[in-house]
Order: sequence, then C-alpha cells, then structure tokens
Amino acid sequence: MKARVHISLKTGVHDPQGKAIRNALSGLGFAGLGEVRQGKLIELELDETDPDTAREAVDRMCRGLLANPVIETYHIDLEA
Amino acid sequence: MKARVHISLKTGVHDPQGKAIRNALSGLGFAGLGEVRQGKLIELELDETDPDTAREAVDRMCRGLLANPVIETYHIDLEA
Repeated sequence: MKARVHISLKTGVHDPQGKAIRNALSGLGFAGLGEVRQGKLIELELDETDPDTAREAVDRMCRGLLANPVIETYHIDLEA
Repeated sequence: MKARVHISLKTGVHDPQGKAIRNALSGLGFAGLGEVRQGKLIELELDETDPDTAREAVDRMCRGLLANPVIETYHIDLEA
C-alpha cells in the first residue's frame, strides 16, 4: 500500500518560501497571482494492506515526525 | 481559482531526504516501511477563472521555475 502525505503550513503562518516563489514568478512575467504557499509531499511504501491500520500508522508518523502540528496541517491519501 | 502542484523526484533519482526520513521513522519503531520519497507541494491562488488557461499557465510556471524537468515530475490539480 502506498501513502501520500500532503503537509502545508497552517493559514496565518508566515511562509517566506512561498513569498520567494511568488516574487520569482512575478519576475518571470506571470501576472494574476495571489498567495503562493509551499508545502511538503511525502510518499511512503507500506507493507500494511489494511487501509484503516495503514492510515492510523501514517497518522502516528505525521504526529511523531513528518509534520509539526503546531504550525502545519497534513492530509493523508492512501493508494492500494 | 486555486492550483495545487505536486512535484516528485523521478523514479531512479537518488533521494537522500527520503532515505533520512525512512531511517528516522525506523528509529522511532515504525516497521513495514518500504521506500520513502520526499517531494514538494506548491499551492497557488490564481485570478484566472478558466480551467484550461489556468492549467496551461501553471504548466508553464512548472517548466520555467517550480520543477526541474530533468529530475522531477509534476502533477497539477485545479480547484474552482
């Protein structure tokens, strides 16, 4: 089973990387851009085959290591 | 319109960050882990309202700045 974790900064948390990307895109001539935010994408291969157990394990990984729950939110997608 | 760009390293490209995450998770006691790969998630707010034009613009942003097409693949999701 494959898990894909999307980690983004919470709304309101300052995102200098996103701002830098926005400025670079504007400098390249892309207009009509609002806010740009950068997050992380983590793809994990799991031996676990039960979706509920897998989701629970990945959730523990997020809380324990992958995400910082103080400033980040995460979303888990599972693929069989 | 909101665009979400998922950028991952191509298969076969060495991913030391993913390896470090895998080792850290193993160290924390998570078993049954296969490969772990880290990518980027970029969220953009666009003034554009036409999905085709928006997708085309974000595709140009990816090829011009956001992704390195030599070693990375990207996937664009649009949200109205």
